[in-house]
Amino acid sequence: MTRDDGHGWRATVLTLYPEMFPGPLGLSLSGDALARGDWTCEARNIRDHGLGRHRAVDDTPAGGGAGMVLRCDVLAAAIDAAAPPDDPRPRLLMSPRGRPLRQARVRALAEGAGVLIVCGRFEGVDERVIAGRNLEEVSIGDYVLSGGEIAALTLLDACVRLLPGVMGKPASGVEESFEGGLLEYPHYTRPRDWEGRAIPDVLCGGNHGAIARWRRAQAEAITAERRPDLDRGDDRPDP
Amino acid sequence: MTRDDGHGWRATVLTLYPEMFPGPLGLSLSGDALARGDWTCEARNIRDHGLGRHRAVDDTPAGGGAGMVLRCDVLAAAIDAAAPPDDPRPRLLMSPRGRPLRQARVRALAEGAGVLIVCGRFEGVDERVIAGRNLEEVSIGDYVLSGGEIAALTLLDACVRLLPGVMGKPASGVEESFEGGLLEYPHYTRPRDWEGRAIPDVLCGGNHGAIARWRRAQAEAITAERRPDLDRGDDRPDP
Repeated sequence: MTRDDGHGWRATVLTLYPEMFPGPLGLSLSGDALARGDWTCEARNIRDHGLGRHRAVDDTPAGGGAGMVLRCDVLAAAIDAAAPPDDPRPRLLMSPRGRPLRQARVRALAEGAGVLIVCGRFEGVDERVIAGRNLEEVSIGDYVLSGGEIAALTLLDACVRLLPGVMGKPASGVEESFEGGLLEYPHYTRPRDWEGRAIPDVLCGGNHGAIARWRRAQAEAITAERRPDLDRGDDRPDP
Repeated sequence: MTRDDGHGWRATVLTLYPEMFPGPLGLSLSGDALARGDWTCEARNIRDHGLGRHRAVDDTPAGGGAGMVLRCDVLAAAIDAAAPPDDPRPRLLMSPRGRPLRQARVRALAEGAGVLIVCGRFEGVDERVIAGRNLEEVSIGDYVLSGGEIAALTLLDACVRLLPGVMGKPASGVEESFEGGLLEYPHYTRPRDWEGRAIPDVLCGGNHGAIARWRRAQAEAITAERRPDLDRGDDRPDP
């Protein structure tokens, strides 16, 4: 079944490596959803807007230092060609300087029209294009990647699985738990005994109230032990 | 130049989607490093150890609930086949319940022999295999993915770029800044004026002391504004 109403969720990715997309998102549930037209994934090469015979996209940093910086004029041209000024989609720049991505933001993005994502080189993009083209810096975590591409794949995977019909079933326990600010309780399945380790008796007794209480207590205990920093309830406000 | 001393950094990934690897890591600098033998990426299909004619790998959760749980016996068999007990590599399970990945951990992993990574389904793996096979749960961020595969790609990208020779130049300013617990200062490059926005004068003056002070002050200000939670200095200890 293919959507042909033109209202699928739209991802546009500006990158120097368009061949990385959809990549892993072309497989599994997100790949099925792509084939159905539940979402689209357009990768555009920033280099198409590069300058001169060599289609240069970067230059040395003003003030000196290692690495190269993506030029604001080149990037702005790529953005302008990809999305008109009235495109309603948020324009994200994957960057370790950005606001940390959390599940509530993922949910909000999935409920919108889609995203335009700019993948920078790790040395960075010229600061002026961030304000000049209204880019929102988003970080997927406190580590450094070789570029924004895998960060973009991460954000897209998180969003696409929330689109209507993609998971093929109601939101799972893990998600509800995580969105409520708790880490997930432990899971078990057959066999009942394995290498001297048994499934906890409460899970095999059929007392649904007791099972729910046990799972809640486990989730509370694991969260308190591992992530006392986790917010309970909604996403953190902007700092 | 190909390394043939057998001492490349070794990644082994256990997954239901081995065709996702090396995926985007087969391109760009990490792809060049893979071709040189600076690292290896072995993806093994968990389903090869599935049970019965249909090679079943999962079953319904003990105690009820949505989704399916990856069986501990199947996963243990896959791990045992991939790595002998004396394999020195850490065994990581990508999971939103895990310890948040940070750059100091990435650096430690990159300095070791490699990693064995288990990619769970998002519903989870049977808890008993975590203790039974000494898996370390690692989270790349507070959001839910469709599986561990893109999280594994993220972790591998962060590690591989730190391997000797991969970047082809000394650690960049962004990395040193980030590892020191500061977000990056703004970057600029040509043109000097763009759409009424100019490169800050200090960066064009050639006074290297003044430039260094300006960058440090910018990094401090941006960090204080955006991420007052960021640790300064080393990685946070285990909670």
